[in-house]
Amino acid sequence: MSDAGTRLATDPAPLRAWVDELGAIGADAAGGTTRVAWSPALRAALDWLAATCARLGLAVHEDAAGNLFARWGPDGDDAVLVGSHADTVPQGGRFDGALGVLAGLEAVRLLRDAGYEPRRAIVVAAWMDEEGTRFKTPTLGSRAFAGHDLSALAGATDADGVTLADAMASWGRDVARLPEAQGVDGIAACLELHIEQGPVLEEAGVELGLVTQIAGLLGLRATFTGTAAHAGATPMGRRRDALSAAARAIVALEDWAAGREDVPVTVGIVEVLPGGFNVIPGECRFTIDVRAQSEQALDAAEQAVRAALADAAAHGGVEHAVQRTHRLAPVPLDPELTAVLARGAAREGATTLALASGAGHDAMQLAPLVPTAMLFVPSDGGLSHNPAEHTSPAACHLGARVLAHALRELTS
Amino acid sequence: MSDAGTRLATDPAPLRAWVDELGAIGADAAGGTTRVAWSPALRAALDWLAATCARLGLAVHEDAAGNLFARWGPDGDDAVLVGSHADTVPQGGRFDGALGVLAGLEAVRLLRDAGYEPRRAIVVAAWMDEEGTRFKTPTLGSRAFAGHDLSALAGATDADGVTLADAMASWGRDVARLPEAQGVDGIAACLELHIEQGPVLEEAGVELGLVTQIAGLLGLRATFTGTAAHAGATPMGRRRDALSAAARAIVALEDWAAGREDVPVTVGIVEVLPGGFNVIPGECRFTIDVRAQSEQALDAAEQAVRAALADAAAHGGVEHAVQRTHRLAPVPLDPELTAVLARGAAREGATTLALASGAGHDAMQLAPLVPTAMLFVPSDGGLSHNPAEHTSPAACHLGARVLAHALRELTS
Repeated sequence: MSDAGTRLATDPAPLRAWVDELGAIGADAAGGTTRVAWSPALRAALDWLAATCARLGLAVHEDAAGNLFARWGPDGDDAVLVGSHADTVPQGGRFDGALGVLAGLEAVRLLRDAGYEPRRAIVVAAWMDEEGTRFKTPTLGSRAFAGHDLSALAGATDADGVTLADAMASWGRDVARLPEAQGVDGIAACLELHIEQGPVLEEAGVELGLVTQIAGLLGLRATFTGTAAHAGATPMGRRRDALSAAARAIVALEDWAAGREDVPVTVGIVEVLPGGFNVIPGECRFTIDVRAQSEQALDAAEQAVRAALADAAAHGGVEHAVQRTHRLAPVPLDPELTAVLARGAAREGATTLALASGAGHDAMQLAPLVPTAMLFVPSDGGLSHNPAEHTSPAACHLGARVLAHALRELTS
Repeated sequence: MSDAGTRLATDPAPLRAWVDELGAIGADAAGGTTRVAWSPALRAALDWLAATCARLGLAVHEDAAGNLFARWGPDGDDAVLVGSHADTVPQGGRFDGALGVLAGLEAVRLLRDAGYEPRRAIVVAAWMDEEGTRFKTPTLGSRAFAGHDLSALAGATDADGVTLADAMASWGRDVARLPEAQGVDGIAACLELHIEQGPVLEEAGVELGLVTQIAGLLGLRATFTGTAAHAGATPMGRRRDALSAAARAIVALEDWAAGREDVPVTVGIVEVLPGGFNVIPGECRFTIDVRAQSEQALDAAEQAVRAALADAAAHGGVEHAVQRTHRLAPVPLDPELTAVLARGAAREGATTLALASGAGHDAMQLAPLVPTAMLFVPSDGGLSHNPAEHTSPAACHLGARVLAHALRELTS
């Protein structure tokens, strides 16, 4: 093993310049970045990425699912993939997804400039539609790459009634040909750098996170049904107030989760009907998002949540219904590949923390099929999906250097 | 005093036929009745009313505010007014408002058919826009009649951007001429029959309610502001969840009011932002409706509500702001005129209950200026502002007969 590739440049400016250049594509009125799936803004971003990769001498290819790959090194089916996604939520930031793609590219640039030559290919990936905001199709690109059957999504429509098929056609893509994007056979390992999107690293004063697994996820939708009635004419003791009962449930859920910390519970969407100043709510619909680190913990949480909802509904004398909308098992990442990242961090003298990812990522689609590991860099203030999303240039570049060390170890 | 007018017919069918005929005007897809202010449906309803009154030999007049009056008896400025409103909320019922107009008209018909001749005029009134849903201008007609300055309302717009001025112009009315509707000088007393819109009479098993006063009303608008963040990536202990804090406030308000019964508190409108399944709410806006039977009770309630909001916000570590949107003092009704209604009820052998009205009514605009009393008939199940709103034909007719006795006493 030569020492080439170990003396890496440490100037954070070129990577930051890329973050800013890419972040300006899809700049929106809120001061954020908006690049939803199959939009002109995302198209422009991928064109910019393709040109940037080509200038570095990488061979660029876009697959049937709109995933962009930039390859450096020899042919073969044992490539090491590094990357994240280039799409954003509406009014998102410059770091969620984009930093993972650009840090992978910076790692390649650093290795190449240090005179390193990989013996196995390194492929920088930009996955399509990780966020899934437009068509409710999160991780579409990495799911297609992993060989999932996505034919059920063809009829998905966005808020304007545009179908996924039509949106893909606007990019010259055919939804029926999504299966052609299956490509996991050609790779031997997968690395993803991402901003943490939470405050744990910052509050712990740690530079990098080594992700042990991606949390399991449970989605429930609850409806509390009482009786809409006149606020002035209906005494307190004779009400069936759907909102009061739902509020009691929301408090109970928070109190339950606060005693645990490792099973966050969130009520994110609430509708109160009929919604009049002087009308006792007859109906309250709300969503419940539960994360847990094991199937057993997810089962226990679902039981506890359902019991809390039933208690609150009974207390308020209202009817209730609960429906499970989705459930994803926890996805463990590869300990050996994570150790490679840990060695890279040690090489940089960086402090690390092993932590689970509460958020989903493209890595969770790859991990069941191929050794996969994730590296987190801190999010300032824990902010994400927000124009104010930020990670310092030094922190971003440290992450890129750790990726470079890991890529060198994996491909030399 | 002759005995004429005391032997009243007791057949409830003609009044019920009127309720059904009028209720069919503005029939909507929900099976309810929709006659908002200045709509073609309300125009058709007033035309039907005018024709029905004219057939009974009453002199019909519509004023500058769209109030319809049908006069029976001699000229003079000491008329006794009886009536309610003909407009409805969207998807309302056939009884709220309309029954008060038609029961007044039935009382006139009963007296006339019994051979009674009033020595002072009886005027059946149908007030314009009691509900105020369309332009947020509740009791517009009775306020104009009471001589309020309504010039500030001219620019009010409905959900489609139509101004009150344009809507009135479509009826050939000029918003600038609203002051001409002032007419309280011409009346000596005012009676209003209305459905209770609550469950008190039904649950007490009592036939009629004698309204002591109309409750005071306080409206507040609260905003809780935390930090929107990722549901998966933000541990429970590091959240500033605006919804959790608001839910705690809503529970506290209910618990506070439940211990009192005479100070109902209602949260009717709730907005949760940004409103994503996996996003911790950064903002929650909600309204608070408080009723009380005295100024002091309203003051005490406002203090308690504000304290509960502050406590909940502090507990959740979020910011909060509270804004008062409206406050109306309690309006006492006239005890002597109420005693006239009580004697009429006694004549019918009807059971009565003295109760305060939690809901606002046109009567509250007249009461400060002229002796005013209100009679409630029960609402089945306490339902109102609902297509299922209902009061039995016998209960409606009993109310009309009590009005007739009172009108006879007041005009003979």
